[in-house]
Amino acid sequence: MTVDTLAARIRHTIDTKTKPLGALGRIEDLAETIALVQGTEAPVMQNCTLIIFAADHGIANAGVSAFPQVVTGQMVANFLAGGAAANVFARVNGVALQVVDAGVAGEPIAHPDLIDRRIAAGTRGFLDGPAMTGAEAQSALDHGAGLARAAAGEALAFGEMGIANTATAAALGHKLTGLPLAELVGRGTGLDDAGLANKLAILERAVSRTGALTPRQAMAEYGGFEIVMMTGAMIETARLGRLVIVDGFIATAAAVLAVALAPETRAAMVFAHKSHESGHRALLAHLDARPLLDLDMRLGEGTGALLAWPLLRAAAAMMTDMASFDSAGVSNRD
Amino acid sequence: MTVDTLAARIRHTIDTKTKPLGALGRIEDLAETIALVQGTEAPVMQNCTLIIFAADHGIANAGVSAFPQVVTGQMVANFLAGGAAANVFARVNGVALQVVDAGVAGEPIAHPDLIDRRIAAGTRGFLDGPAMTGAEAQSALDHGAGLARAAAGEALAFGEMGIANTATAAALGHKLTGLPLAELVGRGTGLDDAGLANKLAILERAVSRTGALTPRQAMAEYGGFEIVMMTGAMIETARLGRLVIVDGFIATAAAVLAVALAPETRAAMVFAHKSHESGHRALLAHLDARPLLDLDMRLGEGTGALLAWPLLRAAAAMMTDMASFDSAGVSNRD
Repeated sequence: MTVDTLAARIRHTIDTKTKPLGALGRIEDLAETIALVQGTEAPVMQNCTLIIFAADHGIANAGVSAFPQVVTGQMVANFLAGGAAANVFARVNGVALQVVDAGVAGEPIAHPDLIDRRIAAGTRGFLDGPAMTGAEAQSALDHGAGLARAAAGEALAFGEMGIANTATAAALGHKLTGLPLAELVGRGTGLDDAGLANKLAILERAVSRTGALTPRQAMAEYGGFEIVMMTGAMIETARLGRLVIVDGFIATAAAVLAVALAPETRAAMVFAHKSHESGHRALLAHLDARPLLDLDMRLGEGTGALLAWPLLRAAAAMMTDMASFDSAGVSNRD
Repeated sequence: MTVDTLAARIRHTIDTKTKPLGALGRIEDLAETIALVQGTEAPVMQNCTLIIFAADHGIANAGVSAFPQVVTGQMVANFLAGGAAANVFARVNGVALQVVDAGVAGEPIAHPDLIDRRIAAGTRGFLDGPAMTGAEAQSALDHGAGLARAAAGEALAFGEMGIANTATAAALGHKLTGLPLAELVGRGTGLDDAGLANKLAILERAVSRTGALTPRQAMAEYGGFEIVMMTGAMIETARLGRLVIVDGFIATAAAVLAVALAPETRAAMVFAHKSHESGHRALLAHLDARPLLDLDMRLGEGTGALLAWPLLRAAAAMMTDMASFDSAGVSNRD
């Protein structure tokens, strides 16, 4: 069967359900994406795992965040204790949650549920040199791919925690897309106007250190361990024929990197939530993506993906469980 | 305890959770509404029932819908067989579903799961006289209240099915709010431009038959049995301290009527989905309401409410299950 034939069958299945044509709007589009990724007009969407990647960023020491760097490790402990927003939303919506130390600053955290994939104790500051080596970046990609292979579910969602990672995502996003840095730099966890101006000035200095870069160069120069590991996981998830749920500014920067490295990854992506972080809109436009939810959130952790997961389940169930006009004996329009 | 003290305690609970201030956006607002309605900073949101009210409209015979009137009864059978979109979404999200015959045209439908609250076999056309008598309207309100009392859940959602009920909702909404009819009349299940112009012309004639009306007069002159019964259910649900999930254009017209009859009902309402039906925006603005979801849907049946229900559960769980900075030992911002 050609893809065209499958696509036509999927569209026919959607259009003959007992509803006016197109009346389920974006749920229909979502169903189409899911069905195409799974290669069937009867898709299954039962299980999802959220992997939260945590890492620290050398650039945090330049004063680009409202919170101290120690919060990254504290929040990892909060995830492991089950008290963060991501834990709460995962429990409510039946999503499995994994927490990965991709490179948190300080001593390694000892906890039986923490998955240790530490590349280093945080990246180096990228003001005067690269955040990581090419070998470290490749190692992060590889670990991400391995975690994606091991995780259960027809869809994988990705969250992150890392003080100052909106600064990293802005610098990396700028180098990957050419979008003006000012469009990509936002208030993060709550900078005031002076803090925002300072963050922008620091990042302008950092990105002027290099010229045009390949995606692999940009990844090492301005990446974060959690971002690059997430990128590796996204590419592998798509390769396995599973849905990639992209959520928030940081994860969208990882998605831009994933598409730059492996363009076929884009077709497996669904976008969960439009972050209140200002740079998100620019990166979404770059990917021609429209998130499902717009709830003014700006927390990260994959919280938007967790709230969007029931929409994926509903869309798949529409394909398999909803009656057609024929099967239900309902008259179609005149 | 005064309400002010409760409101302050609710806000304090939200603001000390382990997240940047305000970072959960509209989920925080939703949590606040739920907590205020339940009168506690530890709200419970475990169960929801969707009641679908079905009825027919005499105005359907004037040619205001793309579908024939017989579809109302056919869709009731589809709900009872479990094949409609509402059934599918209810199963996915764990919502109980009830189907009420509020006045479907033709012979009564015999089915053990159908709740019979038939006022009549459809309303009369409201071109030349009232759609129903004052006694019929009161009976519909009373039945709605009784159904709300009997239904289980901390939240009740309301769906509808009735060929031509966007025409009824537009006429009723116009009389209740004074908004121009042209702003309230839309394509319903799929009218083309000529059909839309015809629908507007017919409704202009119908509403010019009467002058200014009280809400009770408007309800009888231009109401529908499913709309008025839903209104009675909304008022009673709010009176019982439960959440009212309002979804779509028809239900929002019922909500406008409910607030006109019992203004305190407004505080218990959350709005699920912004319908693609054009008049919905105007009625939402009248109620100063902003729906949680915007998925380009225009199906009715309470489908938007079913998709929004997990957000209510997540918001309530945030209040009770998420750690505070103190309890988790996480540093707050500098």
